[in-house]
Amino acid sequence: MNERIKKVSSWMKDSDIQLCFITNPDNVFYFSKFLSEPHERLLAIAIFQEQEPFLICPGMEIEDAKRSGWSGEIIGHSDIDRPWDLIQKAISDRNISINKVAIEKEHMNVERYEAIINLFPQATFVSAEDKVRTLRLVKDESELKTLREACALADYAIEIGVQEIKEGKTELDVLAAIEYALKKKGVNEMSFSTMVLTGANAASPHGTPGLTKIQKGDLVLFDLGVVVDGYCSDITRTVAFGEINDRQREIYETVLKAELAALEASKPGATCAEVDLTARNIIREAGYGEFFPHRLGHGLGISVHEFPSLTETNQLLLQEGMVYTIEPGIYVPNVAGVRIEDDVYVTKDGIEILTKFPKELLTI
Amino acid sequence: MNERIKKVSSWMKDSDIQLCFITNPDNVFYFSKFLSEPHERLLAIAIFQEQEPFLICPGMEIEDAKRSGWSGEIIGHSDIDRPWDLIQKAISDRNISINKVAIEKEHMNVERYEAIINLFPQATFVSAEDKVRTLRLVKDESELKTLREACALADYAIEIGVQEIKEGKTELDVLAAIEYALKKKGVNEMSFSTMVLTGANAASPHGTPGLTKIQKGDLVLFDLGVVVDGYCSDITRTVAFGEINDRQREIYETVLKAELAALEASKPGATCAEVDLTARNIIREAGYGEFFPHRLGHGLGISVHEFPSLTETNQLLLQEGMVYTIEPGIYVPNVAGVRIEDDVYVTKDGIEILTKFPKELLTI
Repeated sequence: MNERIKKVSSWMKDSDIQLCFITNPDNVFYFSKFLSEPHERLLAIAIFQEQEPFLICPGMEIEDAKRSGWSGEIIGHSDIDRPWDLIQKAISDRNISINKVAIEKEHMNVERYEAIINLFPQATFVSAEDKVRTLRLVKDESELKTLREACALADYAIEIGVQEIKEGKTELDVLAAIEYALKKKGVNEMSFSTMVLTGANAASPHGTPGLTKIQKGDLVLFDLGVVVDGYCSDITRTVAFGEINDRQREIYETVLKAELAALEASKPGATCAEVDLTARNIIREAGYGEFFPHRLGHGLGISVHEFPSLTETNQLLLQEGMVYTIEPGIYVPNVAGVRIEDDVYVTKDGIEILTKFPKELLTI
Repeated sequence: MNERIKKVSSWMKDSDIQLCFITNPDNVFYFSKFLSEPHERLLAIAIFQEQEPFLICPGMEIEDAKRSGWSGEIIGHSDIDRPWDLIQKAISDRNISINKVAIEKEHMNVERYEAIINLFPQATFVSAEDKVRTLRLVKDESELKTLREACALADYAIEIGVQEIKEGKTELDVLAAIEYALKKKGVNEMSFSTMVLTGANAASPHGTPGLTKIQKGDLVLFDLGVVVDGYCSDITRTVAFGEINDRQREIYETVLKAELAALEASKPGATCAEVDLTARNIIREAGYGEFFPHRLGHGLGISVHEFPSLTETNQLLLQEGMVYTIEPGIYVPNVAGVRIEDDVYVTKDGIEILTKFPKELLTI
C-alpha cells in the first residue's frame, strides 16, 4: 500500500467506508502510476481499510501496469469477461462486509453505478471525489518538477509558433510546426487540441484552427499545453502580426493588466474568488465585462482542468502547493480575441510562475 | 424538429417517455450538428414528444451552436449559473408532466443523475443509448461520404509514414511527419493519439510512441485515424524495415490471412461473432490464439469506438449501412507485434472497404 493509498485508507476508517472504488483514469494514475486510457473498458483500483488494494484493467494492459510500478494484485479482463463478476470475487475473497462505498460521482456513469449497486445492494454510496481532490490539490516536489518541465516545453512551443508566423501561413501551418518541433523533443501528447487562432477566429474563446491565413493587422492567439509524464501544462499567448489598431491594443493592454494583477493577488490565504475578481474588475472597469465570459482559471496537474476552479464565487483559500492557471480573456466579435494565460504554483508567501514566455505585446 | 430528432420523439411516444436528455457530445452532435467538447461543463439536448427541443450549452458557445445550424432554442449557462435550475425552468415552461426520462446511462455521471432525479423525483429513468445507437448504427449517404474522406486521409497518413521510415529516425520523428503533412491538408483533429511503434514497442497492443529508433529487421506498426467534419477513420498497417525473420513473417502472414478472411465473411446477415471467429480461428489454428487478446473490431462514425462491437459472442446481425473496423493482431512479447486494420461499410450484398492502403507485406 503506497503513501497516497494509505491516506485514502485512513480517511475510509474515519468515515466508516469499506470500499473506495476509483475509476477515473487520472485518479488511477495518481494512486498507481499506471497511466492508461481504457476508453469504454473498465479500469479501476479498489482500496480497502486494511487489506491490499487491487487494480483491474483490460488483460492486454497487465504488463504495462506492472512496468508502471504497480506491485499489488492485478486482475485482467478480456472483452468477453464480465468484469463485475471478477470484482465481486476479488472482494469476497477479502472477506469484508461492505456497507459504505466511495465512488467518483462525477466520473462513474449510471450503468456502472447500477452494476456496483447490484453487487452491494445494501450499501450506501458516497463521493470519493472531494477526498481525492484534496489529496491532488497540493502538489509534492516530484509533481512540481514534472510540471516545471511541462511548462518549459509549453514556452518552447510558443517560441516556435511565434517564429513560424509569416505572411501566407495558415493557422494549421503554424500549429503543425509547433507540434512537429515538440515531437522532435520527445513529446507524445498535448494537454488538449492545440489552438492557433487568428483574426475573427480568435474572437471565439473555443474556436477551431483551420486554413485561415494570418494577415497583417491580425492578433494571433496560441493556446496549448504539453503532457510530461502524465502532467499537463497550459499556456496562452496572443501576439500581433504587423501593426494593430488602437482598439486591439486597448484590449490587449486590458487583458495584460488584469492578468498581472491576478498574479499579484495570488498567495496563500487569498480566496479563489478574490483572485478572479481582481482580474474581472479590471476588465469590467475598462468596459469589457460582458466579453470575458469564463472563469479566470482552473487547477492543473494530471488533469488539464482540475481543482480549484477560479470563479468569482469560489471561497476556497489558496494554499502552498496548489497549481492553477490564470487566463483572463476578452473576445469582441469581429474586433479582437485576446487571452493571456500562465500556470502558477503557490509558494509559502506568493507564487512561482511556471510559464515564462514574455507577455509584453509582441509585434511580428 | 429535424428528422433525427423526430425519430426519437416517435420512439418516446411509443415508449411513453416524456423527456429524452442527451448529454454525450457525440450524440449531441448527431442530433444538432453542433460539435463541442464542453469538458466538465454541461452540454445537452432535451427532446420531447411534441414540443420543440432545446439545447443547453456554455454561454460562450451559443454563437458556435447557431453557426452549426441548430435553429431551436438555446440556453446558455455561465460558470456561475446553476444549469439544472435553467433546465427545470425550460421544462416547466413547456408544461409537461414528466414520468419517464431517457438518459444515456453509459455516459451520464452519477452526480448529474442525482441532479436530474432531484428535478423529477417521481420519474423512472431508462436508457436512451440503445435507441440512439440503433439510429447511429446505420450511416446515411452524407455520413458515408464524410467517412470516405476521413479514410482517404488515413491512407495518405500511412503513405507519409512509410516514406518517412529511415535508419536513425525515431517513432516520434515519423509520427511528427505524418501529423505535419495532415495539418498541411487542413486536418485539425486525429481520431485518437497516433501510434507509430517499432520492434518490442509494437508487441504491446497499446504501446506509446517515443524516442526509440527504428532499426533494420524491425516491424513498424502505424495505428491512426483522421477526423473529418466530426467523423473518424481508423487504420492500422504494419511494415518491415529491412529483412525480417521467418517468425515475424509468419506472424504477419497469419494476421493478413485472418484479416482477409474476416473481410470476406462481412456481409448483411452474418453475425458480428461469425466475423470475429472467422479471423480468430485462423489465428488460433496457427497457434497464436493467446496473442490476440482483443475483439476483432468496433463500429466507427462520430465516435472512434461505437456500435457494433465485433466480439466472438455478439450475435448482432450485420446490416447495410453499418461501418466498422476489422483489426486482428498478434503480439508476441520480444518477437513481433502485427496488426492490420481496415474500415468497412456494409453494402447490400457485401462490403465496401474504405481504407485502401495495400496490405501485402511491404519491406522498406
